[in-house]
Amino acid sequence: MRYSVGVLGATGMVGQKFIQLLDGHPWFKLTSLAASERRIGKKYGEEVDWVVSRDIPEIARDVEMVPMDPKYVDADIVFSALPSGIAREVEPKFAEAGFVVASNASAYRMAEDVPLVIPEVNPDHLGLIEVQKRKRGWDGFIVTNPNCTAIVLVLSLKPLMDLGLQNVRVASMQALSGAGYPGVPSLAITDNVIPFIKGEEEKVEEEPLKLLGRFDGERVKFANIKVSASCHRVPVIDGHTEAVWVEFNRSVDIDEVKRAFESFEPLDLPTSPEKVIIVREEPDRPQPRLDRDAGGGMSITVGRIRKDGDNSVKYIVMGHNTVRGAAGASILNAELMIKEKII
Amino acid sequence: MRYSVGVLGATGMVGQKFIQLLDGHPWFKLTSLAASERRIGKKYGEEVDWVVSRDIPEIARDVEMVPMDPKYVDADIVFSALPSGIAREVEPKFAEAGFVVASNASAYRMAEDVPLVIPEVNPDHLGLIEVQKRKRGWDGFIVTNPNCTAIVLVLSLKPLMDLGLQNVRVASMQALSGAGYPGVPSLAITDNVIPFIKGEEEKVEEEPLKLLGRFDGERVKFANIKVSASCHRVPVIDGHTEAVWVEFNRSVDIDEVKRAFESFEPLDLPTSPEKVIIVREEPDRPQPRLDRDAGGGMSITVGRIRKDGDNSVKYIVMGHNTVRGAAGASILNAELMIKEKII
Amino acid sequence: MRYSVGVLGATGMVGQKFIQLLDGHPWFKLTSLAASERRIGKKYGEEVDWVVSRDIPEIARDVEMVPMDPKYVDADIVFSALPSGIAREVEPKFAEAGFVVASNASAYRMAEDVPLVIPEVNPDHLGLIEVQKRKRGWDGFIVTNPNCTAIVLVLSLKPLMDLGLQNVRVASMQALSGAGYPGVPSLAITDNVIPFIKGEEEKVEEEPLKLLGRFDGERVKFANIKVSASCHRVPVIDGHTEAVWVEFNRSVDIDEVKRAFESFEPLDLPTSPEKVIIVREEPDRPQPRLDRDAGGGMSITVGRIRKDGDNSVKYIVMGHNTVRGAAGASILNAELMIKEKII
Amino acid sequence: MRYSVGVLGATGMVGQKFIQLLDGHPWFKLTSLAASERRIGKKYGEEVDWVVSRDIPEIARDVEMVPMDPKYVDADIVFSALPSGIAREVEPKFAEAGFVVASNASAYRMAEDVPLVIPEVNPDHLGLIEVQKRKRGWDGFIVTNPNCTAIVLVLSLKPLMDLGLQNVRVASMQALSGAGYPGVPSLAITDNVIPFIKGEEEKVEEEPLKLLGRFDGERVKFANIKVSASCHRVPVIDGHTEAVWVEFNRSVDIDEVKRAFESFEPLDLPTSPEKVIIVREEPDRPQPRLDRDAGGGMSITVGRIRKDGDNSVKYIVMGHNTVRGAAGASILNAELMIKEKII
Repeated sequence: MRYSVGVLGATGMVGQKFIQLLDGHPWFKLTSLAASERRIGKKYGEEVDWVVSRDIPEIARDVEMVPMDPKYVDADIVFSALPSGIAREVEPKFAEAGFVVASNASAYRMAEDVPLVIPEVNPDHLGLIEVQKRKRGWDGFIVTNPNCTAIVLVLSLKPLMDLGLQNVRVASMQALSGAGYPGVPSLAITDNVIPFIKGEEEKVEEEPLKLLGRFDGERVKFANIKVSASCHRVPVIDGHTEAVWVEFNRSVDIDEVKRAFESFEPLDLPTSPEKVIIVREEPDRPQPRLDRDAGGGMSITVGRIRKDGDNSVKYIVMGHNTVRGAAGASILNAELMIKEKII
Repeated sequence: MRYSVGVLGATGMVGQKFIQLLDGHPWFKLTSLAASERRIGKKYGEEVDWVVSRDIPEIARDVEMVPMDPKYVDADIVFSALPSGIAREVEPKFAEAGFVVASNASAYRMAEDVPLVIPEVNPDHLGLIEVQKRKRGWDGFIVTNPNCTAIVLVLSLKPLMDLGLQNVRVASMQALSGAGYPGVPSLAITDNVIPFIKGEEEKVEEEPLKLLGRFDGERVKFANIKVSASCHRVPVIDGHTEAVWVEFNRSVDIDEVKRAFESFEPLDLPTSPEKVIIVREEPDRPQPRLDRDAGGGMSITVGRIRKDGDNSVKYIVMGHNTVRGAAGASILNAELMIKEKII
Repeated sequence: MRYSVGVLGATGMVGQKFIQLLDGHPWFKLTSLAASERRIGKKYGEEVDWVVSRDIPEIARDVEMVPMDPKYVDADIVFSALPSGIAREVEPKFAEAGFVVASNASAYRMAEDVPLVIPEVNPDHLGLIEVQKRKRGWDGFIVTNPNCTAIVLVLSLKPLMDLGLQNVRVASMQALSGAGYPGVPSLAITDNVIPFIKGEEEKVEEEPLKLLGRFDGERVKFANIKVSASCHRVPVIDGHTEAVWVEFNRSVDIDEVKRAFESFEPLDLPTSPEKVIIVREEPDRPQPRLDRDAGGGMSITVGRIRKDGDNSVKYIVMGHNTVRGAAGASILNAELMIKEKII
Repeated sequence: MRYSVGVLGATGMVGQKFIQLLDGHPWFKLTSLAASERRIGKKYGEEVDWVVSRDIPEIARDVEMVPMDPKYVDADIVFSALPSGIAREVEPKFAEAGFVVASNASAYRMAEDVPLVIPEVNPDHLGLIEVQKRKRGWDGFIVTNPNCTAIVLVLSLKPLMDLGLQNVRVASMQALSGAGYPGVPSLAITDNVIPFIKGEEEKVEEEPLKLLGRFDGERVKFANIKVSASCHRVPVIDGHTEAVWVEFNRSVDIDEVKRAFESFEPLDLPTSPEKVIIVREEPDRPQPRLDRDAGGGMSITVGRIRKDGDNSVKYIVMGHNTVRGAAGASILNAELMIKEKII
């Protein structure tokens, strides 16, 4: 069982991460790399400023790049690592032409008929695909995964929903790779914190409501919780660390929170980690450099679970922003759709 | 008008910062440097691993270090940069012997009869000095300043008290210098965040209640607010950045919050900055590397003031942790006491 | 005595540094800021991504930017912070139109009739100005300062020339600001060294031969030494550190080398430091963070002077790459020309 | 075939690296962990401040630590990660008691009868073992590997010996992990370079002469080359980068140097990499973050090979300082001795 896959926006940071994760993937075979105009016809290895590992994988090195146009792309599935503005134009063309578009871009995440999915959290939202195809008259469709900070947060919130979650406050300390490449200038962030990431807080406050919402067969009813975010950039290469306060509609104790985290069941998919949430007991974990590669970058790590008054708890959650928070998220979505026979 | 001053714990990070700020001070003349046993009799310049500037100031370089014992220290005022455990034993001896002890140590901050003071916030708490002297029968006394994270936070909270402040949540991104020297190993913090600082959250949650409390002539009645903190270390040399959520008992708007910050009046003291709170309008400020030296390190900088529901606001505050948050705080306390003729 | 000055390429890293150093300058009054097309007519403060200090100086904030064309620039002297390619076209236009062009760009440094000058090293090379004017028929002229790594190196080599210097090997550890802004991506340099800087080694190997050469009234006869460079980027904000091996044509001892460094006389110019070379005796100096601001960034610091065989010595030299190595160098050149009555 | 092995100095940085590399080793079974007095009897996992990976390997976690005394250690081979001062006393006791001591400590590296070995460079020097046993009357013996900077350098010099190597100059940019843990304070190295590492230059200048020397059956005749080193610490976690100048006694060209590097044959041992020297053609490699894990940390990477006059070449070499430069070096020595039936 092998599906041919392409990557849209292959030379950026997330595009590179897609290629890295597709290298050796048991279900997917990389066939197309689409890039911007000036790179078309050139070999990937000669154009990319490869920064995510020592060497460009052989599956990509000599691939000639093609335009971001369905007629040049030969694939069952396209993974989109496009910036939002370009994704807004390009992704619908691919969906219309019959492609499965598994997108990491923010362009259509909040569209009413587009599933925004984390496989372990809301797989049933894939039901929106039928709504989307019907409404838009497309042969293919778009499925999206959330923002990198939102996905790490929501994975930790999902098991808390049954305890009566109401209110979330999150302060993020986000990695440099989240800004792409070249991204953050070294002169801006060395010996510094930048307490602002454009558009980020809005995404972290909105996307969880859809992800944790209920799909009624036609639309997603947003979860009745409130999320407030403060987002900050710190000098860390990979791994978003988030300080979270959660308020419930009843008294909770630490043990039931911990049990909820630990009983989060993984899926049986190639990219799925053995443990979705790793709970660490050490006083000073999770730390991005030590914990970001847990579960191949697909586990999130939670620590420092503390009471904060009767109905409230605080904790730290950390996850790999370009694996679980981007390329790995799209790939897991594609795997889920194959397992669910949607592809 | 010159007072002779000594520094207890002169070789550490905060001790060095005291010496730096005392260099050229119009009211204070450095006369004694007290250090741990093995350094006694040696010249300061030969013992210290000076890290806070290019050169050891001449006022300290050739000073022979003396024991931390009142009978070897010749000064009107001693500034204490001692670790808490040692401060607990040493500071009372100096107070008993008639010294004014202006302490940055945490040992006696929460003691009922010891003033915990930020001059711009609660100068009247110095009234506790009389209670302390009476109760303990000392000739001298101890006055303390808060923890570095708490002081930056409380300077921003003070002007909000009149708006009906009730609830505070703060996530800190704290500088390396807060851990002293050698402090945080480079191998622990390079490309990393450490989401834990021992004892810090407790201090940040307790000290503001005393600082913002009311002194009734005998004791301090704690402020009726709640503070919840999550404290984290980031790879920044100086400057604590704090993401703050504040809830009020009524609806507030951004403009009155901003006005409150900006109308915070400075004192007329040598170390007092021209503006206590600098409000920046840029979307990405304050930043520790750019803003930490504002007002000679004694101003705090606030930015990104945002509504967060009807009764709630969030903002970023940043201040220099070893100047406003430590040595400068103790010196400002001493200046206030001189102005108030307590010394 | 006040000369009106303009800056060409005012928004880049070196342009910002020019503005910072001109703020409060006793001889110069900033009148014009020239920038690229898209910025013309806009206020400097609204266009620049100011990164070199807390606030944009008032002398520049509200200045409307003008084209890089002599007819829009109103100044006696223009300082050029242009990239080499643009400098090649723009600078001659200004010289032809009668301006004094004090340039930090590399475009004309090695031109036969253009002085490449460090005031303390080869002030007499300014004699080339007459040759240049005569040959090119210009009313004005171009004077250049060296590459940032070369200037720090050559300041340390100059006093060694009399000892019979023959051979120089230098390994540089260069600061991020040397690459301009945005310059080096944080993802490229965090937890890393990049052992290559395009075009740098060539400049460091060539420019010293001209700087240390002899002007015979018509041309500069290059110094008969050989320089070999290996240039590397490290995660440091400002300050180039260089490990230097020097071979002489005779036996030398450490003391005469040290004396040579220490007897290097400063000039009497506003931007000139009190000491050109600071020799430190500590085993672990110079360090960029501690020593880069010595002499207002205009001193260089030398340390670790060690014998390396009979005829050879090794040492470390460090200097501020955007002050002594760029903007400060051009300004010092302009000051020298005023003192020498060339302007 | 499994040999039982112990680690002396198990809790330090190199000790941790030994445990990491022994985890899953095909020939070695970890049986003993020896540590300083205060840790004896305690479980490794409860005492160590583990910093080299996410989790302490199971082979070590519950091991009770024993004294550094032969009678408490049950092993065929002991790997020594001791500081030099302690190694000087402890290692002979183990050798006398019949242990094979494979040491990373510097204490006995330069002793006349102790082999200083890099398996790919001078395996025949193991012949010194017989001399050592005879001379000292020991049942066991000590074998050492070089300093981390020296080993990376010498691996690159070995293939150049046949081209007539005479003179070597090396400027190192060394990683933080080379200073152990806690090692370099973050406050000392953030935004900084420290141009001094105590005792390092001496080792880098002496050890290569022995390593590249000739063993005549009784003693090692030192190589007739000269090495001059300048050693510097930079903010990099792992991986020493070295800028090298090599002079030959004849004219050389780049191609023969490159061929020499590339034809360096690997050994057939478990820890041996597929390629000893990886030559990269990109202009900006090797880089520590990208290349340090090549060959499991046991390959070194060379790049930027440039002519420097007729008889001279310069290049960059980089290797993992705690794998190839420390723990991996000792383990490879032990593997070689097993293969050579010395053990």
